[in-house]
Amino acid sequence: MNATAKKPIAIVIHGGAGTILKENLTPAKEKAIRATLAKATNAGYAVLQRGGAATDAVIAAIEVMEDSPLFNAGQGAVFTAEGTHELDASIMRGSDLQAGAVAAVKHVKNPIRAAMAVLEKSPHVLLAGDGADQFAKEQGLPWVENSWFDTDYRRQQWQKARAEKTTALSEDELTKPGSADDFKFGTVGAVAIDIHGNLAAGTSTGGMTNKSHGRIGDSPIIGAGTYADNRSCAISATGHGEYFIRYAVAHDICARSRYLKQPLQQAAESVIMDVLFSAGGEGGIIALDHNAQPVMVFNSKGMYRGWRTAKDAAPLIGLYDKGSEKTWKGH
Amino acid sequence: MNATAKKPIAIVIHGGAGTILKENLTPAKEKAIRATLAKATNAGYAVLQRGGAATDAVIAAIEVMEDSPLFNAGQGAVFTAEGTHELDASIMRGSDLQAGAVAAVKHVKNPIRAAMAVLEKSPHVLLAGDGADQFAKEQGLPWVENSWFDTDYRRQQWQKARAEKTTALSEDELTKPGSADDFKFGTVGAVAIDIHGNLAAGTSTGGMTNKSHGRIGDSPIIGAGTYADNRSCAISATGHGEYFIRYAVAHDICARSRYLKQPLQQAAESVIMDVLFSAGGEGGIIALDHNAQPVMVFNSKGMYRGWRTAKDAAPLIGLYDKGSEKTWKGH
Repeated sequence: MNATAKKPIAIVIHGGAGTILKENLTPAKEKAIRATLAKATNAGYAVLQRGGAATDAVIAAIEVMEDSPLFNAGQGAVFTAEGTHELDASIMRGSDLQAGAVAAVKHVKNPIRAAMAVLEKSPHVLLAGDGADQFAKEQGLPWVENSWFDTDYRRQQWQKARAEKTTALSEDELTKPGSADDFKFGTVGAVAIDIHGNLAAGTSTGGMTNKSHGRIGDSPIIGAGTYADNRSCAISATGHGEYFIRYAVAHDICARSRYLKQPLQQAAESVIMDVLFSAGGEGGIIALDHNAQPVMVFNSKGMYRGWRTAKDAAPLIGLYDKGSEKTWKGH
Repeated sequence: MNATAKKPIAIVIHGGAGTILKENLTPAKEKAIRATLAKATNAGYAVLQRGGAATDAVIAAIEVMEDSPLFNAGQGAVFTAEGTHELDASIMRGSDLQAGAVAAVKHVKNPIRAAMAVLEKSPHVLLAGDGADQFAKEQGLPWVENSWFDTDYRRQQWQKARAEKTTALSEDELTKPGSADDFKFGTVGAVAIDIHGNLAAGTSTGGMTNKSHGRIGDSPIIGAGTYADNRSCAISATGHGEYFIRYAVAHDICARSRYLKQPLQQAAESVIMDVLFSAGGEGGIIALDHNAQPVMVFNSKGMYRGWRTAKDAAPLIGLYDKGSEKTWKGH
């Protein structure tokens, strides 16, 4: 390959958005989160640096966060109302708009790999439940008992949520802003652009604490939580999933970028800071387009994030808000 | 209400797209299909005429088709690989972008009503599997045994599909164009605009014959199979669902209408005739915007459809292609 033909590479990752406040994190936990975000960013960046595909960089980064108990994805996923874990993930390739997703899987160790297997090996895009786990197993992906995803921290969150759920209506309470950080955020995701100029996006989550009724959020929904199109951009979202589905957030940002010719930062701010914020939807997105300039926009108090481009000697990490006036006020 | 303030009403419905050829339909079956499409169109139109909401018109029309064994939705739904039925449906309201959807339900008699219950009564947008059925039951919706959805015609299709599925790879065969009509089409949907100028869209399906692995198609995916936004348009799609998810077809048509200011017919043709056709995705959409002019675009040989506006004394029905050069050629 002609080195001069290489296009600028970049990766951006997130580990969830919500009411992330410095005072709520112990120094030890903050240090661990920063270290894991750096490790995930580097894992993805290393793939890009050696000429690997954007999809592989996205998977490498997400896998680090799935394997860490610090994030609500893979090990460390929240508990459902039944005391189990049901995980969702999706991935999309911008060169040919191929996509794969799994919803409510209980046994595949790395849901993002299951999503990639769906992209590569299945005629379908979205597989759910036992069938999705079975497909992942047939593809030879590592399989674990559901209890493998358990962590004490998430069990305590679940027990707290159950204790507070005293009426039939209180599931609504759990979806209200304010209880956000504890109960529903922590989704992870990554977007990347490789030396061929190909974009990719992926997202993985354990969903909402104490979720019931087979609720599926935006993470496995192509167009809502994840979208990638070489003609516009790559997006991974995190936040109050129902809003991201209704506003087709990931696809809408790409559509504004492509049809309105808005710069990516502006397109993302329009959707996250104006549209979603006005509607009452909390969360954020990470994005990349062919400029390979990391875009990270959130209307919540904070968003765990990491990014690295060819200009950076090391990954850059952010946890808290940078001073936007439009941060979440719980309206 | 001031009658002069009433906005023009309209409803458009579809009963699936695919290789619909006149020679494959007996006169009796064609007559029955036309009659049911007319009945469904009128059921929705009657709601609009008496000042009802667009969402209620959509439900009324879809319910007629769900209750008919002629369509792959409700009774008459195709069989899964396990010999059961798993139904999907979604509905969206253009005034506030509220949406509801159910996936892989087995017992709620009318999945479109379950989707509406999710829209109105759940903090969530998408519920799947047993949890979705349980939610519908809690909302007091009619419940049936899974065998209630059985029809001899669909059982024969299923047995034929099973007989042809002789290798592990042959699931791909079933998703190839050509076998389209028999194996995966027949989804139903409706879009409406009411006297208040509010748009709504809904879709309901039994999915693919002999489907396995928990495959979820585009029908319950907001942005793919269904979208409604008063600022742009209302869309219900039918066809090869994986393509409709990857191209976020319903949302993309609305985005082109809103951002590129394309007339709805042009926006729909761009996506269905150009984008989807080039990619190899077969199917079609029905659409309405504030002009209340029915838009029906499909790249398949035919699409069952019905429509009625204030200018029509009776519903208009179409089954076959009207002569587009870009009909499906199986590439």
